[in-house]
Amino acid sequence: MRAGKGRKIKFVGLAHGETSSGIVQRIEDYRKVADELGALLVVDAVATLAGIPLNVAKQGIDICFSGSQKAISAPPGMAPITVNTRVEEAMQARKEPVRSWYFDLTSAMNYWGKERLYHHTPPITLIYAMREALRAVLEEGLEARWERHARNQQALIAGVEAMGLELFVSNAADRLVTVTAINIPAGIEDGKVRRQLLDEFNIEIAGGLGPIKGKIWRVGLMGYSCQETNILLFLAALEKTLHDQGFRLPAGAGVAAAIQNYQHSAQPVAVGARK
Amino acid sequence: MRAGKGRKIKFVGLAHGETSSGIVQRIEDYRKVADELGALLVVDAVATLAGIPLNVAKQGIDICFSGSQKAISAPPGMAPITVNTRVEEAMQARKEPVRSWYFDLTSAMNYWGKERLYHHTPPITLIYAMREALRAVLEEGLEARWERHARNQQALIAGVEAMGLELFVSNAADRLVTVTAINIPAGIEDGKVRRQLLDEFNIEIAGGLGPIKGKIWRVGLMGYSCQETNILLFLAALEKTLHDQGFRLPAGAGVAAAIQNYQHSAQPVAVGARK
Repeated sequence: MRAGKGRKIKFVGLAHGETSSGIVQRIEDYRKVADELGALLVVDAVATLAGIPLNVAKQGIDICFSGSQKAISAPPGMAPITVNTRVEEAMQARKEPVRSWYFDLTSAMNYWGKERLYHHTPPITLIYAMREALRAVLEEGLEARWERHARNQQALIAGVEAMGLELFVSNAADRLVTVTAINIPAGIEDGKVRRQLLDEFNIEIAGGLGPIKGKIWRVGLMGYSCQETNILLFLAALEKTLHDQGFRLPAGAGVAAAIQNYQHSAQPVAVGARK
Repeated sequence: MRAGKGRKIKFVGLAHGETSSGIVQRIEDYRKVADELGALLVVDAVATLAGIPLNVAKQGIDICFSGSQKAISAPPGMAPITVNTRVEEAMQARKEPVRSWYFDLTSAMNYWGKERLYHHTPPITLIYAMREALRAVLEEGLEARWERHARNQQALIAGVEAMGLELFVSNAADRLVTVTAINIPAGIEDGKVRRQLLDEFNIEIAGGLGPIKGKIWRVGLMGYSCQETNILLFLAALEKTLHDQGFRLPAGAGVAAAIQNYQHSAQPVAVGARK
């Protein structure tokens, strides 16, 4: 993004869902900056597409890409991408050819043209899987899916707070629905807790990166995994684990608070259950 | 490969199996040229790995890559690659960072280092499939697999020549075992034949590219597809199709010649059959 002497900034980019900290970015703020600079807006929606509200056209996103394996819940190995006509024009106007064959959209786009020029052998098994995953997204409905993600995170938050834990992101409006960052309480060892959760309960949560390594846990709730069953099991498993690690907490409070939270929101529906 | 003023040629590259023409390249000739230039040798073994003899270390290949979906017969979506220490050193000595995140081996190789630094989410379902495909390669044995490919192509060649067709590559030593290029006889329309083979028999063969478009057919025999059943069915289907398109050929000659060829070579074994 840094512009050299007299060089124009061409792109403004952001991660919609900042998974390293559990923060959601406000796309509109970046759109304003991009407009001031006359730049294109690139949005990484890997952790957000099909999990929280996103409207590529309405939000003025020029390039938007995501991953197959997060809230879409298809196998990993694909990255959906969309570009608008402004980007197409910018690509056509390039003087220097793209250096990467793999990610040369100018060449890949010929595949959709009249000539149907072959760019690469498509990963057909993954494409079948993606189609099925998108069918499941449509069956649930995009808005219902967003609501499910929000509802389950609310129950998770109610649970961890009732256990006496604090969230890393204090301002509720900044919290990313699909990744909840929890402060590790003083005296508790990050690695021991995560190892016990994995070994004893087959639950994997992430640690912090860089300067917040050892200071936060990150709990992902995306797509299929984002369901009541997992919230309640995780809270129960975390209580047991923290207790074993010597952390004093009110017995049963986490699960109880989550249940109460669910009872005050719309009735949760098991993922994949017929309506 | 073109060197500018005073610039050193760093790489010599070739496609081991030239699928556009059905020609096998002699790696040793390119190795000599690379040695004279003090350059690294890059071999594209997409169409050859696990189909014809290839020995990366003995043949002095510095960088060798292939595809998952050809003679290995795993699903498409992966490209196995190997680089030697000379290449590792060249990568470490780069002054300009690699521009492509996706194909930045300097970054991907950290994943195998002590830090196990995360580079990308691996396509796990494809990796399971690749493991199973490689298990099948080992079960058959690499040399037995090379022999199977050679034997089936010999039967195919005997068949098409007995039908009065000619091969595009006249020198037998230059022929790529995994792709056989056949000259389209005068007066026969490329597209009609390929369309009928596909519609009537579900057999897909490729046409020519560029200046030889409409002049050759290319028959791929790779991995699982390279078996007696397919050779005999293809020859029978081609006879029927050419006959329907008005080409005069000796009745039954193709299949008969292929059968005779099999009877004079080692007994073919159905792919996947227990020994």
